[in-house]
Amino acid sequence: MTSTVKLPEGFTMPAGFRFAGVAAGIKPSGKLDVSLIVADRPVVAAGVYTQNQIVAAPVVLSASRTPTASFRAVITNSGNANACTGAQGQRDASTMCQNVAAAVGCELEDVLVMSTGVIGHALPMDRVAAGIAAACDSLGASLESFIDAADAIRTTDIDRKVALQSVSAGDQQYSVAAMAKGAGMIAPNMATMLAVIMTDAPLDPATAQQVLRRVADVSFNRVSVDGHTSTNDTLLLLSSGTGDSLQGSDLESFEATLSELAIGLAKQLVADGEGATHVMAMRVVGAESEQAAEQIARIVSASPLVKTAFTGGDPNWGRIVSAAGYSDQKIEPKHTSLTLCGTTIYRDGAPVAFDAAELSRQMKAAQEVPVELRVGRGPGEAEFWSSDLTTDYVTFNSEYTT
Amino acid sequence: MTSTVKLPEGFTMPAGFRFAGVAAGIKPSGKLDVSLIVADRPVVAAGVYTQNQIVAAPVVLSASRTPTASFRAVITNSGNANACTGAQGQRDASTMCQNVAAAVGCELEDVLVMSTGVIGHALPMDRVAAGIAAACDSLGASLESFIDAADAIRTTDIDRKVALQSVSAGDQQYSVAAMAKGAGMIAPNMATMLAVIMTDAPLDPATAQQVLRRVADVSFNRVSVDGHTSTNDTLLLLSSGTGDSLQGSDLESFEATLSELAIGLAKQLVADGEGATHVMAMRVVGAESEQAAEQIARIVSASPLVKTAFTGGDPNWGRIVSAAGYSDQKIEPKHTSLTLCGTTIYRDGAPVAFDAAELSRQMKAAQEVPVELRVGRGPGEAEFWSSDLTTDYVTFNSEYTT
Repeated sequence: MTSTVKLPEGFTMPAGFRFAGVAAGIKPSGKLDVSLIVADRPVVAAGVYTQNQIVAAPVVLSASRTPTASFRAVITNSGNANACTGAQGQRDASTMCQNVAAAVGCELEDVLVMSTGVIGHALPMDRVAAGIAAACDSLGASLESFIDAADAIRTTDIDRKVALQSVSAGDQQYSVAAMAKGAGMIAPNMATMLAVIMTDAPLDPATAQQVLRRVADVSFNRVSVDGHTSTNDTLLLLSSGTGDSLQGSDLESFEATLSELAIGLAKQLVADGEGATHVMAMRVVGAESEQAAEQIARIVSASPLVKTAFTGGDPNWGRIVSAAGYSDQKIEPKHTSLTLCGTTIYRDGAPVAFDAAELSRQMKAAQEVPVELRVGRGPGEAEFWSSDLTTDYVTFNSEYTT
Repeated sequence: MTSTVKLPEGFTMPAGFRFAGVAAGIKPSGKLDVSLIVADRPVVAAGVYTQNQIVAAPVVLSASRTPTASFRAVITNSGNANACTGAQGQRDASTMCQNVAAAVGCELEDVLVMSTGVIGHALPMDRVAAGIAAACDSLGASLESFIDAADAIRTTDIDRKVALQSVSAGDQQYSVAAMAKGAGMIAPNMATMLAVIMTDAPLDPATAQQVLRRVADVSFNRVSVDGHTSTNDTLLLLSSGTGDSLQGSDLESFEATLSELAIGLAKQLVADGEGATHVMAMRVVGAESEQAAEQIARIVSASPLVKTAFTGGDPNWGRIVSAAGYSDQKIEPKHTSLTLCGTTIYRDGAPVAFDAAELSRQMKAAQEVPVELRVGRGPGEAEFWSSDLTTDYVTFNSEYTT
């Protein structure tokens, strides 16, 4: 899906941002690999980052600089994660920011940095520097520039992942434009999730940070391809809005739209997961809490037996129910029920007769397969999206040799 | 590996047990599917069972009856797990015990029961009853009878899993004979691990239970094929020994041998894991505690990216180190090192130059690939064994349709 992205009717790109994406030769393929987003003046930026204890150099730098009200730019390279690269990696990440700061005319601390790609190799800094210079020279505010910037953060992504949406808050209309990449596999690396959400809605740094954390918790933190958390995951929210920060019901409705948009992007990641042929949309209800529901959904979605059942269109309630049973969260076996594609096939701890051939046909045909798993009588509910597990996934990730 | 099992020199089968394995038609293939072990007189039995919250009927029954000093028999069927079968399943499990108790001439409570196979289907009790009758008629103490009983608990296991070993404790010589099955996949089911260890070493019920728990924790509880805990896992220790229970250094040396034997059986399970081509023998050192080391090893071993790297013989330290980083256990990134097949490829948080082609060749050639992962400077160490992830695993588990 690298087809043309069109501006939705009545949509204008969020004001105050310019974009560029260039090919600097970091990727052997010659594809775009340096992405730059610049704010015309100091704006608000918030960030959430990988929880992995092994943290890539750019994450360390960026995390120390958000939230902020003086953000000016984020520079991203793909093709090399700058992870597990020691002191040299830290210097390289800082140099990337310095190069941008010099070109943009801002403080070093106002530049953020992201990297994605191979782990454990030093960045080819001559190419990176040349790419940064070229990107600074080609900044533009158009949709085309935005798409170049979005394409330049991709690694093995087959599909382009962008979202453009107008948001009403109170009597104001705002724009949100977002890009994401992942969850493709990079040899000898793991999936990396990068995403940047830009808006012209006014948000102060603290509000932006709180909103972003909540949005991440119901979107990007609820997807999985293979359960392997990257060293480089980064999600940024940039706000160029002027005037008082949104608050109250205006903020609530803005955040609701932002969550929807983020969920949509997160689902794009899963749909484009390595080798994926189906998205499992796993809704867990009746858990003791929302957190418990989320953890049960995560455990069930991670089971290779559950994933392969969806690959084959197998309405295999035994695998799903038993996976819920080995999570750390309490379930009530006698109040456990399962509905697949709207058909209940397990109710209150016992199997229900159903047309397995017809349900299998529906599962195979659906790109997104809805699952509702009741695990008890509690109030906790959560939805989680993950990809199925195919021979293509295994082939791709086993055929590479360092 | 259904080749002939020979008695080790000087080994005699543990006294006081008889065995049978018969084909009762529970498996469509017509293979052996009812297994019976009978003790000639009341002996000691201990058991450890699945921690899944969804528990099969036979597990509920057996768990309520161990530890005991009056064990007389364990009846096992393969081809049907008698799991998620409600009240009927409980009655059927009890009926299996009753049939054996009537034939053996003992109390119902002195009979244990295990099942493995398809989830969610009622047992064909006419066939099961006929199989139990036939098994009672064909009991024998010979190696051949023991092997029949071991074969009758298999499901999709390619290899037969038995262990025969003499143990010295003090000035006495004892025998241990053990059988196991798993971790094969049963459509529409998950792997089930069943194992029975028999000995003529004297153990009282409390001692047997404590020993079995500790042995399980360093053997069967440290292996994984796909991380999916079954509803039916059962491990039994039967002791027919007379006289005072082993204690002190005699008990310690007996337990050490038992642990070795159980680790050997557990590794057989992994080597025969669905589609497996390599065993990853993952030793984690330098963790805060043994439990922390075990959990890190479990997390790393469960990563599909790590598993597929071993499938392809890829010395991919990035995948291994980053997986350790997302476990819940604390690691020290600057004191993290990795050794594969004896070659250190990551030391104190930084990559080390190595001959990747040669190491890849060694990984591919090894049936069991040794991994040592240092995660810090703590005293915690643990070893964990798991299988790699192949296209055969995915094909097998996705091609079945209910």
